[in-house]
Amino acid sequence: MTTSTSARTSTSIGNRGETVNPASPAIDTESVTALLERGRTLATPVLRAAVDRLAPPMDTVAAYHFGWIDAEGRPSAGDSGKAVRPALALLSAEAAGAAPEVGIPGAVAVELVHNFSLLHDDLMDGDEQRRHRDTVWKVHGPAQAILVGDALFALANEILLELGTVDAGRATRRLTLATRKLIDGQAQDISYEHRERVTVEECLEMEGNKTGALLACAVSIGAVLGGADDRTADTLEKYGYHLGLAFQAVDDLLGIWGDPDATGKQTWSDLRQRKKSLPVVAALAAGGPASERLAEILAADAKKSETEIADFTEEEFASRAALIEEAGGREWTSQEARRQHATAIAALDGVDMPEKVREQLVALADFVVVRER
Amino acid sequence: MTTSTSARTSTSIGNRGETVNPASPAIDTESVTALLERGRTLATPVLRAAVDRLAPPMDTVAAYHFGWIDAEGRPSAGDSGKAVRPALALLSAEAAGAAPEVGIPGAVAVELVHNFSLLHDDLMDGDEQRRHRDTVWKVHGPAQAILVGDALFALANEILLELGTVDAGRATRRLTLATRKLIDGQAQDISYEHRERVTVEECLEMEGNKTGALLACAVSIGAVLGGADDRTADTLEKYGYHLGLAFQAVDDLLGIWGDPDATGKQTWSDLRQRKKSLPVVAALAAGGPASERLAEILAADAKKSETEIADFTEEEFASRAALIEEAGGREWTSQEARRQHATAIAALDGVDMPEKVREQLVALADFVVVRER
Repeated sequence: MTTSTSARTSTSIGNRGETVNPASPAIDTESVTALLERGRTLATPVLRAAVDRLAPPMDTVAAYHFGWIDAEGRPSAGDSGKAVRPALALLSAEAAGAAPEVGIPGAVAVELVHNFSLLHDDLMDGDEQRRHRDTVWKVHGPAQAILVGDALFALANEILLELGTVDAGRATRRLTLATRKLIDGQAQDISYEHRERVTVEECLEMEGNKTGALLACAVSIGAVLGGADDRTADTLEKYGYHLGLAFQAVDDLLGIWGDPDATGKQTWSDLRQRKKSLPVVAALAAGGPASERLAEILAADAKKSETEIADFTEEEFASRAALIEEAGGREWTSQEARRQHATAIAALDGVDMPEKVREQLVALADFVVVRER
Repeated sequence: MTTSTSARTSTSIGNRGETVNPASPAIDTESVTALLERGRTLATPVLRAAVDRLAPPMDTVAAYHFGWIDAEGRPSAGDSGKAVRPALALLSAEAAGAAPEVGIPGAVAVELVHNFSLLHDDLMDGDEQRRHRDTVWKVHGPAQAILVGDALFALANEILLELGTVDAGRATRRLTLATRKLIDGQAQDISYEHRERVTVEECLEMEGNKTGALLACAVSIGAVLGGADDRTADTLEKYGYHLGLAFQAVDDLLGIWGDPDATGKQTWSDLRQRKKSLPVVAALAAGGPASERLAEILAADAKKSETEIADFTEEEFASRAALIEEAGGREWTSQEARRQHATAIAALDGVDMPEKVREQLVALADFVVVRER
């Protein structure tokens, strides 16, 4: 355990710090840091040039969203995310035997789609904070959040299609299908908030759509741009899809027990929004006294107004989190992250790729399940 | 003058009923009706099948938007628009010597993008009525308007890219660029509402983005799918772009002087929203007593709240409309529609196409400037 965040991880997310994957007990932090850094270094200038194509004021609003400027328009070295997707898109090209640079337009397009969805989802969900700052709709208003989201989505297709190749068309089609799943996932997420019961299966399906599909696309898009056939791309997507589910399981843990200083979100953020996330649905499905007590409390909460929930004390949120944990929701979700992680890594056996690339994909998967932001 | 609406047209929109285009004084109503009908007949089943791909509840929300069901989910034969774009997309294929059916995926994709923009624009603009019915955000809430708009945009790309050809990639790229312009136009439209003065040139640029670009794409997309080269596609787009500007000039007239029974919008709808539409900016640019009086009144209106404007009497709107007319804004816009119409038709000389197709494109252009809805 040598990640820079491992000390906190082992306390904040149950026992995730212990042994994530028996086959690779020690995470190669140096390798992961270098991979994420390479993704950022190669993709960011192209991403910024793409965003510069937007007409004012959309260019400014987008630059604020990405953390390149602050709300007053001054240059800023804000947090622009973990950059897992760009790192994966470059590795994806290498998995197909191409140079990592071949994956750059794919990395940029996936980042554009991801950020389009963040802009719209934050508005739909009423989320006021992202990456330690006010969300775009809070700062620039709902219309700009809609408009700039739309523009980033269009830009994603533009960046790929201007390559003008058959493979670019194939890559764009995969990105489009992933985007549709992402939208399906958000639709499910919204509908689940109004339902009393959501099954674990429904929650996993929603998370597969919302997180798995785009991560899967990140892992296939570079390979497709590098000329990989559909079978190879599909297998890489399998790794990415399960990696996405592992990623989301960890996100769900962080959404309840995460450190706001690390996540950039409010404390108990998923509980504030009454999200039917994995720890909650697993706890409700578990049965037993804690599970039943939790069900009663959440049923009563469902009848409350958003303002009433927002006025809860820290203790009220903490008692709900404790019940979720007591009913086994936290432990189940930790185990689920490990299961999805193992499935992702097993999928890599289906693709013939350079051994170094495989090792790096494994290292990234390890990173995803131990991160705490 | 034998359009079914010509009697009202000549009174409702200044003198547009007189001679729209000296070279083709009589509109071939039968031909236009048949063209619009063909577009609807060929495109609608494919459009409905595409919308059926959406997961619940998005499929229902989209079906409501298109007028296929009512707010309670009962089948409805609601107004789903004029269907000018599908008609153009099929003619576009024929202009390239292909069968009209070759243009169907293009027709459907353009309709999907058009409706994506309506869903988002209605929400951003706070428009409560479209096609004689409550808008989607009024009936199903803002989140569904955002989500279903996003889904229709993604679906547009999906429909084209699943053709899997190089030409489909070219068509999608053109559609993407048109969509970006459409978004630019909406951004300009929003920003103009907060400005005291907008020049005629700025207004035309905004309308070219908001309406011209997608109509241009409708006229090139069928040809591109039929294998036309970029020069042919660009020339067809020139016709479509100016047709779009003519279309929008008429829309701007209808937005002030249109009959609500025909347009499906509120009376004085653009005045209610303080839109800087062509008649307004032309009137303000004209100078003279009526222009100056109008400027004073609109400057005072700009300081009022939305509620105060909504509470205006019919007479208050009518007096503003009368000043716009007195300052020459109505007449200038009518003439602008005729100028753009003439430029559009002249552009057709740049493409070698079957004479029948050219005649039909001319008939559609004539229709666009005399319509009253």
